[in-house]
Amino acid sequence: MRAAPHRVLVVGGGFAGLYAARGLRDAPVAVTLVDRRNHHLFQPLLYQVATGSLTAGEIAPPLRWILRRQRNATVVLADVESIDLDARSIVALGADGHRHELPYDTLVVAAGAETNYFGHDGWSASAPGLKSVEDAIEIRGRVLGAFEAAELERDPAAREAWLTFVVVGGGPTGVELAGQIAELARDTLRRDFQHVDTTRARVVLADAAPHLLAGYSARLQARAVRDLRQLGVEVRLGVPVDAVDETGASLGGERLAARTVIWAAGVRASGLARALAEATGTPQVGGGRLAVGPDLTLRGRPEVLALGDMVAIDGVPGVAPAAMQMGRYAAATIAARLAGTPAPAFRYRDKGTLATIGRNRAVGQVRGVGLHGRLAWAMWLGVHLTYLIGFQNRVLVFLRWSISYLTRGRNARVITRGRRRA
Amino acid sequence: MRAAPHRVLVVGGGFAGLYAARGLRDAPVAVTLVDRRNHHLFQPLLYQVATGSLTAGEIAPPLRWILRRQRNATVVLADVESIDLDARSIVALGADGHRHELPYDTLVVAAGAETNYFGHDGWSASAPGLKSVEDAIEIRGRVLGAFEAAELERDPAAREAWLTFVVVGGGPTGVELAGQIAELARDTLRRDFQHVDTTRARVVLADAAPHLLAGYSARLQARAVRDLRQLGVEVRLGVPVDAVDETGASLGGERLAARTVIWAAGVRASGLARALAEATGTPQVGGGRLAVGPDLTLRGRPEVLALGDMVAIDGVPGVAPAAMQMGRYAAATIAARLAGTPAPAFRYRDKGTLATIGRNRAVGQVRGVGLHGRLAWAMWLGVHLTYLIGFQNRVLVFLRWSISYLTRGRNARVITRGRRRA
Repeated sequence: MRAAPHRVLVVGGGFAGLYAARGLRDAPVAVTLVDRRNHHLFQPLLYQVATGSLTAGEIAPPLRWILRRQRNATVVLADVESIDLDARSIVALGADGHRHELPYDTLVVAAGAETNYFGHDGWSASAPGLKSVEDAIEIRGRVLGAFEAAELERDPAAREAWLTFVVVGGGPTGVELAGQIAELARDTLRRDFQHVDTTRARVVLADAAPHLLAGYSARLQARAVRDLRQLGVEVRLGVPVDAVDETGASLGGERLAARTVIWAAGVRASGLARALAEATGTPQVGGGRLAVGPDLTLRGRPEVLALGDMVAIDGVPGVAPAAMQMGRYAAATIAARLAGTPAPAFRYRDKGTLATIGRNRAVGQVRGVGLHGRLAWAMWLGVHLTYLIGFQNRVLVFLRWSISYLTRGRNARVITRGRRRA
Repeated sequence: MRAAPHRVLVVGGGFAGLYAARGLRDAPVAVTLVDRRNHHLFQPLLYQVATGSLTAGEIAPPLRWILRRQRNATVVLADVESIDLDARSIVALGADGHRHELPYDTLVVAAGAETNYFGHDGWSASAPGLKSVEDAIEIRGRVLGAFEAAELERDPAAREAWLTFVVVGGGPTGVELAGQIAELARDTLRRDFQHVDTTRARVVLADAAPHLLAGYSARLQARAVRDLRQLGVEVRLGVPVDAVDETGASLGGERLAARTVIWAAGVRASGLARALAEATGTPQVGGGRLAVGPDLTLRGRPEVLALGDMVAIDGVPGVAPAAMQMGRYAAATIAARLAGTPAPAFRYRDKGTLATIGRNRAVGQVRGVGLHGRLAWAMWLGVHLTYLIGFQNRVLVFLRWSISYLTRGRNARVITRGRRRA
């Protein structure tokens, strides 16, 4: 009689969860991937959806489709509500409207992170973050809608507020968003409006730290500031945000009238992290992330691994390559255990990091070497096309980028209803 | 002293309004195009967004971008609230949140049509229509979400209701939607699910008339029924819809348990039609459409033209080519009047009509000749690519279609939140 296969339940279809599931394709296990979304999201390109360069479908392939050839994997569209570590099962509200109990032998939790307002959750309505497809569509509607409103607004001060865009947070997402909004205003929309001069739009990038792009060398940080300023972005460093509402933001005590504020200041671990911390005594550190062990397991629960943006490991940044590596590591560890071979501790291999600022402009650190300008930008393009999932998406994104490069156009500019009204 | 140019105000950026605006590019006029959306919508391909083949951005180019090189045209993002025919001005709520008064010398109203529930507006929540990008995204979420729910649902009867799709209305939109859902279930999703056999999904196309595709020859109508049945669609003719709710529909007295019902049974003129009818005494005929004169003007108001789906002219169907022709006619008429030359009456040139059913299957009537099968399908592809606006969109759609043809894939399958929960 054959034993039932070892059940691996993976919560979350982001980079960490997806790479864990895929890494188990040849293992003698039954994988169930649970996500409340039907798609994987290629988050590093989400800012391009938010600024009209790409459509959501191009960077959000269905999880089922990605795993369609993996015979030992099942996808469940459901929202995890609770985890019973003693009974080894989770309860999730399924797409069918019923609660489902999903048992496991090994649990891999990769539920990711959400926008962190650092105690000011009330700011979220005025300053959306950028974590989901819906967020990107919302930001796209606000940014493009602000130019439409400015075109009609006759009061000069009110018009200026529509043409002022504040991006809070100087990490890669903030830098990329600010750069794209500046290019949108200065290049793409320049000829589209009659009454308003979009090139006079004000794009402010603010961070409380004295530098952009924490973790980059001082030289590259300075380069990023220079590049952004050349694009027309006002970079305001060492400036904390005191207040945000729908008419503007207060930066370091100075009031700035702005109808569009975007929050890219930080993330915190998904709510599941707290439940797991309370149930196991695993400490939560910065942003609520779980301080997992060197094998990514929770305290006293070797059968429960947590990975991706919801965990904190010294020296491992919250970036997509780290999540992919953790996913692969989790798969290898589970396979090794089943084979009775020892699993090593997780070791992060820093393959480098790149942030794009605009056309022909990017900064990066690859194997300790600082890069900038056109070379870094070309590497950025190549890396992102390579890791994008799906041949068709790669072709479509490559085409959109090529045409945008030639025409300075951004053509995925639908404003949908349901967004905030002026 | 130069006189101020003649002001032409165009309400609506669909085919009729857009072609009117573009047709005036060399005329000595100042054109203002008002729309509450920022994009033109290529409605003939909207069903492909609703079924995951295309993304919204590919068929919804920004109006501003389309008209960017037309120096005498301005685009205003605003929702028309009222029209004062005596004062020759309209009031519209702008994207800036203020009301704007827009004066005109000639008014072109092309506000289109909306879904018609024939007195049962309460059915709209249970059976969405397909007129806007939001509608398409909503239907896509419901259709794809139904398969997800079926995968989880354990009760056989409830599962069958999730796998039953009812399309009400046998015009081109209904035929195209039913064919696409059948192909989605039988080809695209076949390998993506483990617990449910998507090929057993039931797709019902119902119409109260005894035939599909009114206006086509009896031979082609029969061919469409045969093609749909070969795809696995249950075609139910002569069956009126008695009731619709979120658990199903009642067709000709028979209750059908179905969690997804789509309404493609008809359209009615935009609400502006009634206001114009009341103000001018122009009669409203079937679906509230304005019975305009042979020069598309309203009764007693030669300076007000109405066109597109909101008007009724004998022998002119409510299709995109007719709207384009009316748009071009309106532009030519306005230019002729300004030049002091006589304008002829509107004459519709029937260039033929095509409806696609599925892969290699379509029916069409072109210059009195009936076509079907692969030839009609190839013509359909060519015509739609030709009329799609924007070189980039043509390339992207061509690519998506080519890859879908080779792989039977449909990859624009994001389900976004905000849709109905189970």
